Amino acid sequence: MSEDHPLFEQGRHLLSVSQFTRENLRAFFDLADAVDPIAKRQAVCTVLDGAMLGSLFFEPSTRTRLSFESAFLRLGGEVTTTTGFTFSSMAKGESIADTSRVVSGYSDVLVVRHPDKGSVAEFAEASTVPVINAGDGAGEHPSQALLDVYTLDKELTDRGKTIDGCHMAIIGDLKFGRTVHSLMKLMSLYKDLTFTVFSPVSLELPTEIEQYAVRHGHRVHVTGTVVEAVTGADAVYATRVQRERMTEELAQANTQGDLLNWSILAEANNLEAIIMHPLPRDSRPDSYDLSSDVDDLPGLAIFHQTDNGLNVRMAIFLTALGVSIEAVNLTTKQRPWKATLRS
Amino acid sequence: MSEDHPLFEQGRHLLSVSQFTRENLRAFFDLADAVDPIAKRQAVCTVLDGAMLGSLFFEPSTRTRLSFESAFLRLGGEVTTTTGFTFSSMAKGESIADTSRVVSGYSDVLVVRHPDKGSVAEFAEASTVPVINAGDGAGEHPSQALLDVYTLDKELTDRGKTIDGCHMAIIGDLKFGRTVHSLMKLMSLYKDLTFTVFSPVSLELPTEIEQYAVRHGHRVHVTGTVVEAVTGADAVYATRVQRERMTEELAQANTQGDLLNWSILAEANNLEAIIMHPLPRDSRPDSYDLSSDVDDLPGLAIFHQTDNGLNVRMAIFLTALGVSIEAVNLTTKQRPWKATLRS
Amino acid sequence: MSEDHPLFEQGRHLLSVSQFTRENLRAFFDLADAVDPIAKRQAVCTVLDGAMLGSLFFEPSTRTRLSFESAFLRLGGEVTTTTGFTFSSMAKGESIADTSRVVSGYSDVLVVRHPDKGSVAEFAEASTVPVINAGDGAGEHPSQALLDVYTLDKELTDRGKTIDGCHMAIIGDLKFGRTVHSLMKLMSLYKDLTFTVFSPVSLELPTEIEQYAVRHGHRVHVTGTVVEAVTGADAVYATRVQRERMTEELAQANTQGDLLNWSILAEANNLEAIIMHPLPRDSRPDSYDLSSDVDDLPGLAIFHQTDNGLNVRMAIFLTALGVSIEAVNLTTKQRPWKATLRS
Repeated sequence: MSEDHPLFEQGRHLLSVSQFTRENLRAFFDLADAVDPIAKRQAVCTVLDGAMLGSLFFEPSTRTRLSFESAFLRLGGEVTTTTGFTFSSMAKGESIADTSRVVSGYSDVLVVRHPDKGSVAEFAEASTVPVINAGDGAGEHPSQALLDVYTLDKELTDRGKTIDGCHMAIIGDLKFGRTVHSLMKLMSLYKDLTFTVFSPVSLELPTEIEQYAVRHGHRVHVTGTVVEAVTGADAVYATRVQRERMTEELAQANTQGDLLNWSILAEANNLEAIIMHPLPRDSRPDSYDLSSDVDDLPGLAIFHQTDNGLNVRMAIFLTALGVSIEAVNLTTKQRPWKATLRS
Repeated sequence: MSEDHPLFEQGRHLLSVSQFTRENLRAFFDLADAVDPIAKRQAVCTVLDGAMLGSLFFEPSTRTRLSFESAFLRLGGEVTTTTGFTFSSMAKGESIADTSRVVSGYSDVLVVRHPDKGSVAEFAEASTVPVINAGDGAGEHPSQALLDVYTLDKELTDRGKTIDGCHMAIIGDLKFGRTVHSLMKLMSLYKDLTFTVFSPVSLELPTEIEQYAVRHGHRVHVTGTVVEAVTGADAVYATRVQRERMTEELAQANTQGDLLNWSILAEANNLEAIIMHPLPRDSRPDSYDLSSDVDDLPGLAIFHQTDNGLNVRMAIFLTALGVSIEAVNLTTKQRPWKATLRS
Repeated sequence: MSEDHPLFEQGRHLLSVSQFTRENLRAFFDLADAVDPIAKRQAVCTVLDGAMLGSLFFEPSTRTRLSFESAFLRLGGEVTTTTGFTFSSMAKGESIADTSRVVSGYSDVLVVRHPDKGSVAEFAEASTVPVINAGDGAGEHPSQALLDVYTLDKELTDRGKTIDGCHMAIIGDLKFGRTVHSLMKLMSLYKDLTFTVFSPVSLELPTEIEQYAVRHGHRVHVTGTVVEAVTGADAVYATRVQRERMTEELAQANTQGDLLNWSILAEANNLEAIIMHPLPRDSRPDSYDLSSDVDDLPGLAIFHQTDNGLNVRMAIFLTALGVSIEAVNLTTKQRPWKATLRS
């Protein structure tokens, strides 16, 4: 799957989920597991002492930015931050190549988010240090897919299951939902999967994504209702539907009430399902999204996803900068402060 | 005074000055004293090595933000910063609870400023780590009141006096000035105070604040002029009056010239008084505020307040994260750089 | 040259290139050389452990900000950042003096950029710690001139030459281009220079700058074409011409095609010249700037300038904070991460 894309390893950009094989994905997840004491604040690490992250968000995405920055800082590195649509220099006509060449001279690794598909790859082309794609419009957002699959793997393992052979329901906006496409591509590295998908009319899964999964030996069943999609699923992955994506008629016909809630899971006889969502979820009264009435269900994994994002982004930085888990362990120690909240 | 509010200690949010008793306020100030060599740049501390502050300013307040961030950094911690009216995720309909739960997963303590009263408490409700209220609109701004009382205590001690039994003049906007309300509440923990207050018509001290002080055994005298308020006072606390708070007639009638200046203090025969202000002071020609012609007076304490803000905010973080002064001292050392300015 | 301006050394503000003599400039460049292993990521330094930079950009300049912040962080210090036209407190009428006094209480050194000439000096007046001028409108931007001369020195040395006796072509907007003025002033500390200058009509070099160079024993030749200016030059320094600076007629008459490109250098028989530019360069189709078709020429030094900016800004901080190179070396060590990019 990586003909065009070199494997993600030391000294390489991370631009696409296509840079992973089943083998290096497993090694990558082992690294994400190994940094868990640091991510969970049980230990302090200084392995990236003196290393500099350039965090460049040409498009706002506060939480993705905070997650990357926290991951780098927790490994002992330092961060410079730039947010906003454009650099002041780019407003004066500077090319992406010049901006990238200059800024990469100040940093050891760059995290770049940009609204235009392909622009992060263009940025990487001129950089002298590894570039991590934090989302390029309709393109890719590989760290999101990695944390989704990492979380799914952990949740299934907790239940004595594996991703191999699992049944995944994917519901919501399957057309414009970039995360769903990257997720299905990355999951396709596993074996014998069943996807049951549901979307409002006009927001269907693109044929090339469906065929990609099928070509890799998986089953994709398009269903007509969420109840049908969710029935028997090990996990359900819900994505926000932006009403403005639909005509008014379709919006009314397709989106009465919630996309997914307690009643729907109960009707599907599946209140134990693992519940995932890339967040944010829309909590406004007229939204068609995951209801917060599922928040006490045992399978709720949406905050495990964001928490696991730290592990995954630490593993990204360690990989790009060629740091072994042995080096991490050598620089990890206890600390005199407590972050626990008293009830 | 803390029936509704748990004492501020390790693992607790700091939302209100009501979380202090006379006893834990004294212990808190002792901690603020103990970190003075670090605040004064005579020593370097690494006790918060690996700890992460999430600094979230939904409303701009540059200096409050810089003070909190500097305090955390000087203790050896790291900071991620977010400023602006809202998170990009909140613009997409995310609830305060979801935002808080996600962001608290990246941090060990959060400092939150928000324009709406009560919203910081709502944020704290869903957080997995301690939340420090850095101002919630018309609500509270406890670190300001703490640094005000801490400064007053030090200034009075320097003059062989104590807060117990002191005479405090409070002048300016006493109605909308949040800092005045928190200050009088926190000072009410002491004994036998005399408050002389002055405000322009329509900006009077609310009855409940006056009664709060009286109920705690203090005297509150409402005066008709600043000279009268300031006469005999050990200290005078001036707060900015925003002209737009008053009708035009009242503005003209009440606010000719400065709120407080050298002449007024001379007329009150009190050029030695301790002079305090929460800052910023309005230096524009038509402002009705503290004049800069008092800046050479011996009692000017306004920059002692901002400097002491570092000590107080360090003490807040050490308390919330359960760090003892012994742990601080063990990780404090000399440094090879000098921050002194050559004349 | 420093009658009005004290020499730049420990405990002093850096406001102007006039604070350098030939001797302390050489010592300053030696310091910039000495930190090269840190700037080039071959070693990690902690000498500024616990020191705090206040980075205050009242006018946006992303790359200047990132360069200063990276330099400070690479020396082991910490940074608080403020960007935007004004502090929230200044919007409420706070004076520059009050803002400076308060913020300098949180920091050990301040970097200040402001759109108004003289405002950084005003800021410095009230500060309790050293202030570094990062550009004050039409005023000065001393770190830019320092990195320009530092780069020129290194490039000439690599070719067995020196700045003494060199021939420098300076082309573009010589009237409003602040960097050109500071550059010529700082270069005037050297001996026996030849400047050949070219500008579009109405953007000529101010007489006082020309006379300044002449008074210091140098030659300034005004030329009518870029080819003429560049012929025989050891180095050419090009600056962006903003079309809006010229009347439309002049713009058309003066600025057909590029300001400088491969063909012009070939016609001047000088494809080996050192090529410098303060960046950003305008890469839009209708710009009148340095073309990217020179990017493969051996003399291209524009990215050496930005890379050297780290060395120069580290040397600025070490000087202001009185840190010796011995102290730097004592706190420098190897690191377990690699920032190199794999091809």
